[in-house]
Amino acid sequence: MTTQLIESLTEIVGSKGILTGEDVSQRPDGWMNAPQCKAKAIIRPANTDELSAVMKLCHQNDQTVTTHGGMTGLVGGAITSEQDIVVSLERMRNIVEIDTQNRTLTTEAGVTLQTIQEAAEADDLFYPVDLGARGSATIGGNIVTNAGGNRVLRYGMTRDSVLGLEAVLADGTVISSMSKVIKNNTGYDLRQLFIGSEGTLGIVTRAVLRLRPKPRGEATALVAVERFSDLSKLLSLAEGGLSGGLSSFEVMWNDFYSLVTSFERHKAPLDANSPFYVILETQGKSDEAEQARLEELLGEALEQELISDAILTQSVSERDKIWAIRDDIEALFSLSPIHGFDISLPIPAMEGYLENLRTDLLARWPESRMIVFGHLGDGNLHVIIGKVSYDEKHELDETVYRGLAPLGGSISAEHCIGHEKKPYLHHSRSEAELALMRTIKQALDPKMLLNRGKIFD
Amino acid sequence: MTTQLIESLTEIVGSKGILTGEDVSQRPDGWMNAPQCKAKAIIRPANTDELSAVMKLCHQNDQTVTTHGGMTGLVGGAITSEQDIVVSLERMRNIVEIDTQNRTLTTEAGVTLQTIQEAAEADDLFYPVDLGARGSATIGGNIVTNAGGNRVLRYGMTRDSVLGLEAVLADGTVISSMSKVIKNNTGYDLRQLFIGSEGTLGIVTRAVLRLRPKPRGEATALVAVERFSDLSKLLSLAEGGLSGGLSSFEVMWNDFYSLVTSFERHKAPLDANSPFYVILETQGKSDEAEQARLEELLGEALEQELISDAILTQSVSERDKIWAIRDDIEALFSLSPIHGFDISLPIPAMEGYLENLRTDLLARWPESRMIVFGHLGDGNLHVIIGKVSYDEKHELDETVYRGLAPLGGSISAEHCIGHEKKPYLHHSRSEAELALMRTIKQALDPKMLLNRGKIFD
Ligand SMILES: Cc1cc2nc3c(=O)[nH]c(=O)nc-3n(C[C@H](O)[C@H](O)[C@H](O)COP(=O)(O)OP(=O)(O)OC[C@H]3O[C@@H](n4cnc5c(N)ncnc54)[C@H](O)[C@@H]3O)c2cc1C
Ligand SMILES: Cc1cc2nc3c(=O)[nH]c(=O)nc-3n(C[C@H](O)[C@H](O)[C@H](O)COP(=O)(O)OP(=O)(O)OC[C@H]3O[C@@H](n4cnc5c(N)ncnc54)[C@H](O)[C@@H]3O)c2cc1C
Repeated sequence: MTTQLIESLTEIVGSKGILTGEDVSQRPDGWMNAPQCKAKAIIRPANTDELSAVMKLCHQNDQTVTTHGGMTGLVGGAITSEQDIVVSLERMRNIVEIDTQNRTLTTEAGVTLQTIQEAAEADDLFYPVDLGARGSATIGGNIVTNAGGNRVLRYGMTRDSVLGLEAVLADGTVISSMSKVIKNNTGYDLRQLFIGSEGTLGIVTRAVLRLRPKPRGEATALVAVERFSDLSKLLSLAEGGLSGGLSSFEVMWNDFYSLVTSFERHKAPLDANSPFYVILETQGKSDEAEQARLEELLGEALEQELISDAILTQSVSERDKIWAIRDDIEALFSLSPIHGFDISLPIPAMEGYLENLRTDLLARWPESRMIVFGHLGDGNLHVIIGKVSYDEKHELDETVYRGLAPLGGSISAEHCIGHEKKPYLHHSRSEAELALMRTIKQALDPKMLLNRGKIFD
Repeated sequence: MTTQLIESLTEIVGSKGILTGEDVSQRPDGWMNAPQCKAKAIIRPANTDELSAVMKLCHQNDQTVTTHGGMTGLVGGAITSEQDIVVSLERMRNIVEIDTQNRTLTTEAGVTLQTIQEAAEADDLFYPVDLGARGSATIGGNIVTNAGGNRVLRYGMTRDSVLGLEAVLADGTVISSMSKVIKNNTGYDLRQLFIGSEGTLGIVTRAVLRLRPKPRGEATALVAVERFSDLSKLLSLAEGGLSGGLSSFEVMWNDFYSLVTSFERHKAPLDANSPFYVILETQGKSDEAEQARLEELLGEALEQELISDAILTQSVSERDKIWAIRDDIEALFSLSPIHGFDISLPIPAMEGYLENLRTDLLARWPESRMIVFGHLGDGNLHVIIGKVSYDEKHELDETVYRGLAPLGGSISAEHCIGHEKKPYLHHSRSEAELALMRTIKQALDPKMLLNRGKIFD
């Protein structure tokens, strides 16, 4: 039966549109160290119509389908079994239109984030979502994982930049909601169903993205902070003082800052004696204007004793050096085996949570190291735990996650659930919520064909 | 059977919790001139548990339920028939908590928008959603209609200010997703189901709202613009130059501006000879700082010949006078009978659409008047048509709506569908989209008990 299905699929997409055998198994099923792809075939439709026909056929044949975008997801959302077929959007890579007056970009879902950013830039506009994997991650992948990144504080997550969306349902139905307007209260907002649904409710094929005016200038500072409670005061001061210009408020706990700056490739711009360091960045009218605003702000913060030290960068290279500290993930590998967690918490609960976690970790793994940094303004912390064996990952996961629910925290701020976080979803969602999620899944994909085994069983 | 149901409901909510007979029929079913409430009873639960028990009972008895908030909705979303029971949230009016450090406000859904705004303000914070009906409209109503208002450009619609939400489903199940964090990618984002669903998928009982730092100062200008194409250039310039500070960009077409300023209560701050007038408002650090930024911007706009004249207000009373022009809905009643439309369109399509509409209107109703103003930055136009008889409303509706679909416009930017716009929903949504909406409705409310007859049949 499989051979026959593959034949029929080939009729739809042509021989260029299908990979089998070694062409499949040579590919990985995700980012770095991912297992090899086990699927029966990889289907590469050229357009929505082909994909719709593919899905109709798969539906008739009860064939499960997992979608592959740029394969940069971090929770095993794209892994496959021998029973699956993969749909890859790698041949749907056209930007359809840039409407400069309306400031929208219409694109196929296989286009990479970086290509979108560059296309916007070429028209003197700006697509604000940004993340390290920009060169590979696709817009479709960004949408179904509701990707965040470095500028959420100002521009929101991917959800906030999607005006319109087209998706193919499990039975091949095409849902085209390609609206180009910001406000559209005409019945249920169907976009929202697909955004963040990790490919379990539909395959995203096209989108209309909202572009912004390109910032004309920016300014960056690194400051030292002595008390946790001063961090949120500083955030409020910065949001007020920079009135909408604040684009980053990245906090590094001392353990992060001192570890990273202990490497020779960095010169610590500030002494490593303070408990917290913050990178502040503002974007606006011109470098000079932003520099002046940020300088004034730092003056006020010093006066109010919210910060103990500060550096306002004076050049792009100074700026890059500061961000290089924040982005030096490699330095963390010196604590291997390492485990990364992407959690969120109400700001007032963070300090207590981290204190308890540190105590628990040291009690169980006396050698372990805990390194913290994150987007404080979004309530999003990256917690890196080093010197704990991979074999003990499950126990470690439970240790990190169990303290979150009582504090209203979330086990996944940005990276979603996929396959890896599935056992822990109950820490963030009640039985009633999980049941409602299943109701939605059942309604849209009653045969459970799309990305089976992800998010929940 | 009804008597028995009413008795059982009274047992749940107590005698204070139920109204019948004249207490029901004396109430209107919506805003101004709405018909009287026809429902069998109005149930006023004191809390979520009572409401859950009420819904369980109604579900067992196949009893339809319509929710009443502040009754300011403009599309007949709250109207009832003799078969319905009303649930009113008027006894669920407690603000549960303000978390100043995390900048969140937790509230019951019956609290009015104005009360929320004032509570935030008292703690030196800011709830950005604002609209004329603030004194009566409830947060629950705002959420299920995804209300917009005057500051969408900067802060988004209600959807963008809801972090957590609790709702009671048709069968009484309580879905509590009261997250206090901005980022939470843990399975489907269930909030989104209820936001904008007009009470057809669940009754919203509580919410966690996101607060912002209170703006410390503002500046306001009125400018005249000679060409439509300059409007979006001015918008881009303003967004760039005020770098995130721009909070309003309200455009008045000449017919609006000249009509309103012809009334003696206004002194036209600028001559009424230009085709377009824009109110620009920026919020930020201090009145002086914003004033300076806006002044600089106006200078640039004059230099680039994007504007032909400008007034930068120098006092609160000058500011208020300008907004009084924009808000003088009463002046429009001089064209009675009037009909208001709340549409959205991609910016480049607006001019042509309005030209065609004017031609169509004058061809069919030579006496008719068309008055346009709106939130241009959001693509949202208010079109007011005067001197057309109420009897011809349906034909008028078709005339306004039929040109929107080909241009990617929407028949309802803010006000939703309710009962009144139901016959026209097909202008904005495809058969496939409508079918998917029905699938969702069917999954969450298979007996179609919640707000029956609204959005679709
Ligand atoms: C170096 C690095 C940095 C990162 N930084 C961030 C960050 O700052 N913030 C953040 O939020 N995330 C970050 N991520 C993870 C982020 O989730 C992904 O980068 C991105 O959003 C996934 O896009 P992708 O095209 O690679 O999707 P894939 O990895 O191919 O797929 C991810 C999931 O989406 C599904 N999928 C993909 N495309 C579609 C489609 N068109 N329709 C339906 N389902 C689809 C897959 O089945 C899978 O479940 C980072 C990842 C890396 C490797
Ligand atoms: C003067 C005026 C100005 C306005 N300006 C704007 C504006 O600028 N922008 C804008 O978007 N809108 C505006 N509106 C309309 C706006 O939709 C409403 O003001 C508001 O959002 C509705 O809230 P409410 O509590 O009055 O809801 P209601 O009118 O009571 O109900 C509206 C709908 O929501 C349902 N509902 C109400 N509460 C709940 C609940 N808790 N759970 C489930 N369903 C519920 C009802 O069944 C009904 O379908 C304006 C209205 C007026 C009268």
